[in-house]
Amino acid sequence: MIQNDLLLRTINKETVERPPIWLMRQAGRILPEYRAVRASLSGFVELVRTPDLAAEVTIQPVDILGVDAAIIFSDILVIPECMGLPYELIEKKGPFFPKTIESGADIDKLASGTSAAEGLGYVFDAIEITKKRLNGRVPLIGFSGAPWTLLSYMIEGQGSKTFSKAKGFLYKEPKQAHKLLTKLTETIIAYLKLKIKAGVDVVQVFDSWAGLLDRQLYREFCIPYLQQIVDSIDEVPVIVFSKGAYFAIEDIIKLGSDVVGLDWTMSADSFRSQYGDEVVVQGNLDPCTLYGDQQTLDNRIHSMINNFGKHHVCNLGHGVYPDTPLDNVKHFINTVKAYRY
Amino acid sequence: MIQNDLLLRTINKETVERPPIWLMRQAGRILPEYRAVRASLSGFVELVRTPDLAAEVTIQPVDILGVDAAIIFSDILVIPECMGLPYELIEKKGPFFPKTIESGADIDKLASGTSAAEGLGYVFDAIEITKKRLNGRVPLIGFSGAPWTLLSYMIEGQGSKTFSKAKGFLYKEPKQAHKLLTKLTETIIAYLKLKIKAGVDVVQVFDSWAGLLDRQLYREFCIPYLQQIVDSIDEVPVIVFSKGAYFAIEDIIKLGSDVVGLDWTMSADSFRSQYGDEVVVQGNLDPCTLYGDQQTLDNRIHSMINNFGKHHVCNLGHGVYPDTPLDNVKHFINTVKAYRY
Repeated sequence: MIQNDLLLRTINKETVERPPIWLMRQAGRILPEYRAVRASLSGFVELVRTPDLAAEVTIQPVDILGVDAAIIFSDILVIPECMGLPYELIEKKGPFFPKTIESGADIDKLASGTSAAEGLGYVFDAIEITKKRLNGRVPLIGFSGAPWTLLSYMIEGQGSKTFSKAKGFLYKEPKQAHKLLTKLTETIIAYLKLKIKAGVDVVQVFDSWAGLLDRQLYREFCIPYLQQIVDSIDEVPVIVFSKGAYFAIEDIIKLGSDVVGLDWTMSADSFRSQYGDEVVVQGNLDPCTLYGDQQTLDNRIHSMINNFGKHHVCNLGHGVYPDTPLDNVKHFINTVKAYRY
Repeated sequence: MIQNDLLLRTINKETVERPPIWLMRQAGRILPEYRAVRASLSGFVELVRTPDLAAEVTIQPVDILGVDAAIIFSDILVIPECMGLPYELIEKKGPFFPKTIESGADIDKLASGTSAAEGLGYVFDAIEITKKRLNGRVPLIGFSGAPWTLLSYMIEGQGSKTFSKAKGFLYKEPKQAHKLLTKLTETIIAYLKLKIKAGVDVVQVFDSWAGLLDRQLYREFCIPYLQQIVDSIDEVPVIVFSKGAYFAIEDIIKLGSDVVGLDWTMSADSFRSQYGDEVVVQGNLDPCTLYGDQQTLDNRIHSMINNFGKHHVCNLGHGVYPDTPLDNVKHFINTVKAYRY
């Protein structure tokens, strides 16, 4: 049913001729065609909430860049929103929550599970429209934030260099933290299942602030919840991307997700020599490589592909940065597509 | 000559009864007595430039907290300043450079080496006053930013989540980057030597943005310069703290500095099992631990001390955060001081 099923075959560990490639944040940011759609609206959040346009910008990178997968245009913060904690996105500043979690009573008030997730009809509509328009060309990826990353925004209220308020909450109020993480996990699972029902072929869980923790905190406040998510989703493959969590990588591999996402700080040869050739990995070119000349870029791309070897989904090690030269993005994608194992 | 020489004995691998303790950012931020001094001035930079008051806030944590070392109150950005690129510190926002490095010509214009470093007389004056007033009670630590971290501010002009402009410079203009790193290194060495001449007993090099790179970039743009610094300073012990650079930790150990600083993401048992018991390490309690209750704090402290074993300078894994409860800071210090190997 999917014409370009390279991503799915790679995840299934079938023999493939080259790694599939897609880019985190490919839908949005870098394409002039995206910015044209975005300029017609009041803001990012309005685009997330408009299924027809969300579908349009989801498909743009498939048409324009020729990537091997689409990822639905959305935001990880729709989960707090459907639980009763709406977010805003302030231009050049990032996410902002007018209301944050300050007490156990605030956590008790949050909706959770299927009834909360069902409030995100605009996401499921966007998926259905996208699937129709993609017409089986490439797989569609759905995603969610991980429990800890979502908690960190709900406590902190905005981006932070240290997220010391959110981390402090884990130390000060571990029981309340577990209560919130439990509600988040229930909602994430329900949300991913509804996304799958709407048509996504793969799901990715983004633990964007994993790297702020340490092994002990990650084991206590993240791994059990990620395990629940991985164990609950058996309809489609699951990718877990815990950015910066090198200290917990063995625990993350043991989760048994189909793919382990890696950020750029983990070198391919170190990873393979320490954790073996059998883990399907995704990543991990430094997005800043795309600012360089094409010779340096080529060296980096080939070194990454050769050192990961098979069982590798090519991607960046972080979302593509907004000011990345589009020609280099295209060069990255075309270089990978021209590669043969 | 130094009465409490526990830090120096630990660095020399002599037998000690307990680990010494001091805290990154102990001079400033958390003490009401510091804030009283700070409030009498126009801003942070004025305090850095006023030797008598810089000495006063340097000694405060020795008097009030009973730490085993003082660290001169200053800022890593005095180096760009003395090279011709002055900084400001904007309250609640952080460092800001009105002028940044945009071309090779900008780099050519920068002063460097001893003649540049000699411009920082106020730092050396502060050291001399501090040494006199400390009167040998505890050792005094001097510090500098590392070349990459200073370059990153000089290119980026301010703090950033990704420092993508600075990292992009490494990929786009590697030759210019090396030229700037060379000038920075010459200036850092001259600066540290002048600090030693003024009286500091130990120096620490802070590579605060090390964790944004990867092993390959760290090997090309950081290690050779850190090696020059370590090799040039033989008058006093050198501590190298490359925050977040787990991927380069073997290269950092091989530098042969007297002490390797570790951030909180590196667990003590993993470090010792991978890199042995002989490296003198400094760190690495998560500063957020100090928001928790004292039971959790005690567990964390004892686990850290027990797992690092000897050859360990107790510290946080990052500078103490401004809103840390002072009672917990005192509890941390007193717990370490009550410990016996």
